[in-house]
Amino acid sequence: MRPLTFSPGPSKISDETYRDIIEASESGVLECSHRSDAFYTLSSSCLTSLRAYLGIPDDYHIHFLDSASTAWHSIIANTVRKKSAHVVAGAFAKKAADASTLLYKEAMVASFPLGTAPDMGNIDFPLDTECITTCYNESSTGVMLTQNDLQALRSAYPDALLAVDVTSCTGAVSLTITDADIWYFSVQKAFGLPPGLGVIIFSPRAYERSLALEETYENLAGMWRWSTFVRTHEAKHGETPQTPNILNIFLLKQQCERFIALGGINAVEQQTREKATRILDMVDAHSMLSHFVTDAMHRSPTIVTIKADPDYVDALMRAASLENITLGAGYGSLKETTFRVANFPAITNNDLDRLIKVVEKTGI
Amino acid sequence: MRPLTFSPGPSKISDETYRDIIEASESGVLECSHRSDAFYTLSSSCLTSLRAYLGIPDDYHIHFLDSASTAWHSIIANTVRKKSAHVVAGAFAKKAADASTLLYKEAMVASFPLGTAPDMGNIDFPLDTECITTCYNESSTGVMLTQNDLQALRSAYPDALLAVDVTSCTGAVSLTITDADIWYFSVQKAFGLPPGLGVIIFSPRAYERSLALEETYENLAGMWRWSTFVRTHEAKHGETPQTPNILNIFLLKQQCERFIALGGINAVEQQTREKATRILDMVDAHSMLSHFVTDAMHRSPTIVTIKADPDYVDALMRAASLENITLGAGYGSLKETTFRVANFPAITNNDLDRLIKVVEKTGI
Repeated sequence: MRPLTFSPGPSKISDETYRDIIEASESGVLECSHRSDAFYTLSSSCLTSLRAYLGIPDDYHIHFLDSASTAWHSIIANTVRKKSAHVVAGAFAKKAADASTLLYKEAMVASFPLGTAPDMGNIDFPLDTECITTCYNESSTGVMLTQNDLQALRSAYPDALLAVDVTSCTGAVSLTITDADIWYFSVQKAFGLPPGLGVIIFSPRAYERSLALEETYENLAGMWRWSTFVRTHEAKHGETPQTPNILNIFLLKQQCERFIALGGINAVEQQTREKATRILDMVDAHSMLSHFVTDAMHRSPTIVTIKADPDYVDALMRAASLENITLGAGYGSLKETTFRVANFPAITNNDLDRLIKVVEKTGI
Repeated sequence: MRPLTFSPGPSKISDETYRDIIEASESGVLECSHRSDAFYTLSSSCLTSLRAYLGIPDDYHIHFLDSASTAWHSIIANTVRKKSAHVVAGAFAKKAADASTLLYKEAMVASFPLGTAPDMGNIDFPLDTECITTCYNESSTGVMLTQNDLQALRSAYPDALLAVDVTSCTGAVSLTITDADIWYFSVQKAFGLPPGLGVIIFSPRAYERSLALEETYENLAGMWRWSTFVRTHEAKHGETPQTPNILNIFLLKQQCERFIALGGINAVEQQTREKATRILDMVDAHSMLSHFVTDAMHRSPTIVTIKADPDYVDALMRAASLENITLGAGYGSLKETTFRVANFPAITNNDLDRLIKVVEKTGI
């Protein structure tokens, strides 16, 4: 029997998605040439459903990557000539800055303490920064930004492209895509699919920047220039330059269609927030637990990070394991004093009942 | 019912692999954190089996990419300061040259006619070329090189790294890994898995070149520097920097173990060549068909390209389709006058019986 996992990604896969895996296998789609009409139809339909589900404007481009990690590199290589800037309050936001430094760019970083939301009014980037990155839902801490945070950043630096990592909330939380130029995520989080597919979304303005860098021989993306994706897709709607992860494209299409049938992103977000409230209430009710993110406004509904004494964390991990439940370990330096509960759409109220039961009965 | 496909990739998936997909789903491995011991054990075991099956020396590095396409970029970005050179006799060999040009390197190309093997004695690259690429099994034409071809190239340019695209034969054809510095392939060809995983193999000498480029700030791979892969793997055997395609890593491990149990690479190659002989005999026996690759020594056993009048190609494609059989279309400019038969290990003698029956009864 599979353990019940609250790991923040790869994460729990729903029974529906497991059935989709069987369906994909039986249909023969995994054996299709990626230069065949059968694949173009599937891929195009996945993109259409994703656009509808996430409310992505028609003029924003959507392309498949292998993971969200690749997006860090892709964004810097395609859009930055010289200067990037990075709002960092956790390990994942930091990776975008690393991607820039590793491509020999000037990467300016505004750092904020773990567990807090960056104070967007307290940032001083050069006005000629070409691209600013931030992480909307920091998986390492459980902090989620608000639309106000993004809008404050955008209005302070109107000329810079704004690139937002939404890896661990996309699909479960409504976003206003026009708030930024570039968004990216992977599917093993809120979409609840096996790992191996990422998605990048970029605005016409971001695309133009990448083309301008091509013209001056400063686009470092090589064969993964955005123009390669765009032109391939323009040749055949849904076509990809690389041989893609066809299984995951099928699964993503199915998941988007299912989420739309459930009432769309707002309904899925509502369910996610109701479940998150149960987890937050569990913390409030337990004398050994506290919220790692003290500002309630910035607590992520999809990644709940909970603080406890190291002995309690250890005891709880072991008690959960005996019940065949895997919790998310605290990230990096937070490993001993926190644990994480992923609350993606695949997690049911019954799953939460099991979690709460173990937590309630565990003391030290 | 799934059609029987002879498409060169994505290609036929065996019943055993479909059973592995179910097993992976049921085991819970697709929900495992890629920073967990469960994943490290799986990944490490996959690498060990792959090393054993392909006879990869202990000092060669093996790392997972999302596809072989990514390898073109990765090789140029990690190893070329200024000059690369490319032996080209087909569309796939050409892509490595494109990857170099798109990273603003000086890419010299030696071109040979489609359907022929490059004449390695008739190449004049600068002796200070840093990296030479070639395609061992050109999927677009069905030409396969020999070990002699590689050795001739290597001895003429001993200082250059030699990078060999073995995308569409690895797993079905024995290779001597010490013949080159860099090898790469993807799993939806001879390994018969769903698409979405590539593998790159590189020598200590190639790795040192990538480190030297880092030291002089000329390594353009960014966060996908080979050192990132190597150091992550050194921290935990089997660990990957990105969240990888865990399903395909599981399937590749299973496939390697199965191929080893069948008698290893030589036994699999023997079976592949016996099946290829049946296809070649079918061509010889049919008045409307001829071999696109006239030099018998250089005919690929895994991708058989067959020439015919456009009307016949069209009639055969349609006749096959009525029997629920998909043939590989000719590539690019060869589309009207050729078709391709992928003869990977998943193709059985019964599958060939069905193919031969359709071909025998189709005239125009």
